[in-house]
Amino acid sequence: MNDISTLQSLIGGRWLGAEPHMPLRSAINSNLIYHTHAEKIDFDEAVVYARKTGVPSLMALDFQTRAARLKALATYLMGRKEELYEISHHTGATRPDSWVDVEGGIGTLFAFASMGSRELPSSNVLHEGPAIALGKRGGFAGTHILVPRGGLAVHINAFNFPIWGLLEKFAPSFLAAMPCIGKPATATSYLTEAVVRMMHESGLLPDGSIQLVIGSTGDLLDRLNGADVVTFTGSADTAMMLRSNKNLLANSVPFTAEADSLNCAILGPDVTPDDPEFDLFVKEVAREMTGKAGQKCTAIRRIIVPENRVDAVAERLRERLSKIVVGDPKVEGVRMGALASMDQHRDVGERVAMLAEGNEVIFDASHGFAPVGEGSAGGAFFAPTLLLCRNAMVNNAVHDVEAFGPVSTMMTYSGIEEAVALAARGKGSLVSTLCTKDPMIAARAVPGLAAYHGRVLVLEREAAVDSTGHGSPLPQLKHGGPGRAGGGEELGGIRAVRHFLQRAALQGSPTMLAAVTGEYVRGAAVQESDLHPFRKYFEDLKMGDSLLTHRRTVTEADIVAFGGISGDFFYMHFDDIAAKDSQFGKRIAHGYFVLSAAAGLFVSPAPGPVLANYGLDNLRFITPVAIGDTIRARLTCKRKVDRNRTDEKGVGQGVVAWDVQVTNQNDELVASYDILTLVMKRV
Amino acid sequence: MNDISTLQSLIGGRWLGAEPHMPLRSAINSNLIYHTHAEKIDFDEAVVYARKTGVPSLMALDFQTRAARLKALATYLMGRKEELYEISHHTGATRPDSWVDVEGGIGTLFAFASMGSRELPSSNVLHEGPAIALGKRGGFAGTHILVPRGGLAVHINAFNFPIWGLLEKFAPSFLAAMPCIGKPATATSYLTEAVVRMMHESGLLPDGSIQLVIGSTGDLLDRLNGADVVTFTGSADTAMMLRSNKNLLANSVPFTAEADSLNCAILGPDVTPDDPEFDLFVKEVAREMTGKAGQKCTAIRRIIVPENRVDAVAERLRERLSKIVVGDPKVEGVRMGALASMDQHRDVGERVAMLAEGNEVIFDASHGFAPVGEGSAGGAFFAPTLLLCRNAMVNNAVHDVEAFGPVSTMMTYSGIEEAVALAARGKGSLVSTLCTKDPMIAARAVPGLAAYHGRVLVLEREAAVDSTGHGSPLPQLKHGGPGRAGGGEELGGIRAVRHFLQRAALQGSPTMLAAVTGEYVRGAAVQESDLHPFRKYFEDLKMGDSLLTHRRTVTEADIVAFGGISGDFFYMHFDDIAAKDSQFGKRIAHGYFVLSAAAGLFVSPAPGPVLANYGLDNLRFITPVAIGDTIRARLTCKRKVDRNRTDEKGVGQGVVAWDVQVTNQNDELVASYDILTLVMKRV
Repeated sequence: MNDISTLQSLIGGRWLGAEPHMPLRSAINSNLIYHTHAEKIDFDEAVVYARKTGVPSLMALDFQTRAARLKALATYLMGRKEELYEISHHTGATRPDSWVDVEGGIGTLFAFASMGSRELPSSNVLHEGPAIALGKRGGFAGTHILVPRGGLAVHINAFNFPIWGLLEKFAPSFLAAMPCIGKPATATSYLTEAVVRMMHESGLLPDGSIQLVIGSTGDLLDRLNGADVVTFTGSADTAMMLRSNKNLLANSVPFTAEADSLNCAILGPDVTPDDPEFDLFVKEVAREMTGKAGQKCTAIRRIIVPENRVDAVAERLRERLSKIVVGDPKVEGVRMGALASMDQHRDVGERVAMLAEGNEVIFDASHGFAPVGEGSAGGAFFAPTLLLCRNAMVNNAVHDVEAFGPVSTMMTYSGIEEAVALAARGKGSLVSTLCTKDPMIAARAVPGLAAYHGRVLVLEREAAVDSTGHGSPLPQLKHGGPGRAGGGEELGGIRAVRHFLQRAALQGSPTMLAAVTGEYVRGAAVQESDLHPFRKYFEDLKMGDSLLTHRRTVTEADIVAFGGISGDFFYMHFDDIAAKDSQFGKRIAHGYFVLSAAAGLFVSPAPGPVLANYGLDNLRFITPVAIGDTIRARLTCKRKVDRNRTDEKGVGQGVVAWDVQVTNQNDELVASYDILTLVMKRV
Repeated sequence: MNDISTLQSLIGGRWLGAEPHMPLRSAINSNLIYHTHAEKIDFDEAVVYARKTGVPSLMALDFQTRAARLKALATYLMGRKEELYEISHHTGATRPDSWVDVEGGIGTLFAFASMGSRELPSSNVLHEGPAIALGKRGGFAGTHILVPRGGLAVHINAFNFPIWGLLEKFAPSFLAAMPCIGKPATATSYLTEAVVRMMHESGLLPDGSIQLVIGSTGDLLDRLNGADVVTFTGSADTAMMLRSNKNLLANSVPFTAEADSLNCAILGPDVTPDDPEFDLFVKEVAREMTGKAGQKCTAIRRIIVPENRVDAVAERLRERLSKIVVGDPKVEGVRMGALASMDQHRDVGERVAMLAEGNEVIFDASHGFAPVGEGSAGGAFFAPTLLLCRNAMVNNAVHDVEAFGPVSTMMTYSGIEEAVALAARGKGSLVSTLCTKDPMIAARAVPGLAAYHGRVLVLEREAAVDSTGHGSPLPQLKHGGPGRAGGGEELGGIRAVRHFLQRAALQGSPTMLAAVTGEYVRGAAVQESDLHPFRKYFEDLKMGDSLLTHRRTVTEADIVAFGGISGDFFYMHFDDIAAKDSQFGKRIAHGYFVLSAAAGLFVSPAPGPVLANYGLDNLRFITPVAIGDTIRARLTCKRKVDRNRTDEKGVGQGVVAWDVQVTNQNDELVASYDILTLVMKRV
């Protein structure tokens, strides 16, 4: 146990709170473990600090530098993870439950650090191209940029994942240069406080990057404006209350909600009790019912099975559930811990009663429930509870009432379309699992499921080996569903960062577009000099540095020789009869010859700063090259990204993309592409 | 004038309304021109018709087919455009004003038809890849899909662009398979009624694609759910009222608002009265003040100029404004028409009075205002009005009060940062113009402007030649701004369609991902047969059809010969000394040789269904190929798109993307890319 028994808020760069206020109790044995603080928070101070200190200090870095900071922070926190596991025990979580929260949270920081480094520029303007011409004469073009909004992010979180809940939102908003005010659910805010304390102690975050609110948000939301954002994870009721805030509505403050929902798992009509998929399905359902004691917004609440499989599924599920040892996770062999509080225990009990009306309870505490561990009689332990609904197309409760604990309702369908229709009756959920062996069933059912879910998992033997499971949001994949699930979108790779940026269309001359985006745009002014751009070190190279090569006349001999070396004797190059009959009316040179000859035109043979051409994007062959045509290339430095990397010898290097245009004697574009290189730094 | 003097709603596939209700008057002379209908609309019928008839009939088509319908519809409407111009005259619009509404609206249909055809699949699942591996063993992967939501779109529009306003929203939501219920502002609903009547008469739209509400929306919004969407264009007050609807909030119904805002134009500190940019700026401001009589949500309301340029700008603006002939647009020489109604006239007058408090009116009706045309005394004509604010950093009205007419306020700044700060005081606008010659000023100011604007136009002599102007949203570029502007996003290319689709993460084995997305995913099952995939016609080819080629050992002779033919003598291939010192420690083959040799391995030389390889994407060189290595290629049909096209001889063709993996003797991936081809149809 932490020696600070009164939790503190971090506001304006200082820890606030000494006087105890509301007691917080262990979920395991109801012992008093912490108090919230009695001191009032000055939310004006918090907001002003975020705007005046946080925004400038974050904007003083660029996307790449913030990504590097995130990685350093993740490494730092990983070094202190055991302290977090220790505190997490009070929440009623088992070690695997806490792993999701602690290492899942820190892993999300690592993931965003890595995606940021791979996909974001070393500036504060993200170019979302391509630029497009908006006129006939080449003087006017348009594109899109994404820029930091200049405001702050308020992240309001649920009690079930006090660490992951904050970090999965902090990571992308930090990359987007938004200072964060974190507001955890009070019941488990001690764990969030612990991790924010570490983040603060790390010294890795620019001033004002993070503030923490223990207790109520007071008038915080009334102080926000259109540059800010609010994210919320929790119940649909609280989401409704928050998003109705007049100030948020009046200022169009983006509000992203991720609400509990009635997620489902569907057993495909093709799966028989003898298939390994049958066991996979039962195992997945049991795990989702009992993991984190069912307190996951992604937990399976509805088990949708073919009519003729109900008994078999029920039997195997009962068998599994009856083997799960519930109790204090510190006791050896315990597989399921407690609900987060006695309040939650009461609430889940009430909802089970609502679900039980008109439905059958086929597994519950009456099937031998005895939580183990000292003091567990005072803990918030709840028995795994399974219900069966035989009229799900007309019963509303099973699609509407969510018991946020180890509770799930089985229901029956006939025909995969009915299964999809039942899933949709949840009015929008976070995730759905479809267990099927048959790709055709997946192809038929998934689009309908996708319309009502943020994520769809197709489960069968091949996927099962590596499957991350129904309940786990991943940094790379979207989290958040439509309708009841809140309509929000989180995670999903670099998309998550884009959600925290402001997109603007940009119009002007190519030169202006290039200056603003930091990326060469066709038609923009270029710089030419005697020094070949491939001979410039990364620091010296400038966007727009350009080389117009010497020319080369393409001959029949070239085509013949190229056919010989490549082995490509396609009729368009070699069969005069067929080529005459083709769209081009004559033999033309190989596209790959044009590409290779262009490289021959612009290569600088001796060793130099350009280390490797590791790829090529957006190649289009536009005008065919015929025998006798004369080609040349223009090579222009398009984009530089400084990822702050060095090779194994400690030599710094950056990524440089080059725009290549190959033209013919009539200045017609023959081929157009980008090449990707690594370029050495001087120091 | 149309012979139907009582306007009708189109509900449930039938035109409704015979009994006159509210009178609608000409903006030019206040003559009575139409009535709304007195009959009540049954919104339950409208919603049920959209869901039960509209959704299935739209889903019976695919993205490509809907794009083709959109093109046919645009062609049909263009053929009847003069009927629309005729009616548009009643709104007070000049021919150029009406052009924006009529041909701009139809042009948006053409633009979305074309973007849809180029960028959307011939199915109803849009794969938003790339798929990524989610485990070490290759059995589990993740990706994203976008699918039709299965709901309907309610488009609520403003009075100023009765045709464009509907069509710019109808086009992307139609592509996204959403039936539309259009609700125009009543004052000019006769023009929307006319275009919807044509759309209905065209017979090109599937049943239930479009319904029209003349009059109030009644309880329509209370009947929507999370699968539906609402878009709104109009005043911030109405936006606030609509988005506060409890049903929309409770069901997370996406609500996209595009509200009037206090857009600005900034004259850069570098522009002197002698520069052509100075005149461009004055011309742009005058045009935006008076075009559509200033009734554009994008009109320039704030003119931000350096302190030392105020007098010069004022002088030239007054000069321009004094030359603008106001009156009935049917009269020769008239450049500015009327406001949409006498109600609007009153409202604009009141707001000018608010703006005038503490500020100077430097041009208004007192400078000789005499609308021309018969009956114009009864028309809603308003004089161009220019104000000057000398304390804009402390005055609030000039950043808050919008007079929706030919009214603008000039204000001063010192230093470009102050100009950006003034722009931001609008609390979020649709568009901002920055007039500067200096790319460095653009690079400094635009990111700050972009944070508060949906679009930024950089104006100078180069751009001016083709510029589409400050006030024109384009189908290709985002329309909509943060904060006061509503926080919505419309248009912006194919993004607009994505906004109306539901994104879901998809997890499972590569085979399942391929089956659902319709796109081959690495690791998915493939089909191999004796028939080379390049010899199959488009109809016969299946996603996953695959060829594993014979092998080829790469020799020193290959490198020598390839250097000779390409002219590429880079040290990594030819300088044994330098290559030994390089990252690879030895000479390696040219990347483009590997590419060319791979083509040689998989090409099928004789004429066949594959017509051309027109491009290549995502090429990455992964493992270098050394002398003695033996390579082979796997070519797999990745994606087929049927754009319903034929060549000039009438032969049908489709687009086929192929996944190519080149591997070495150790089965290591050497190069990875997609090639793009056109493939002939059998019929």
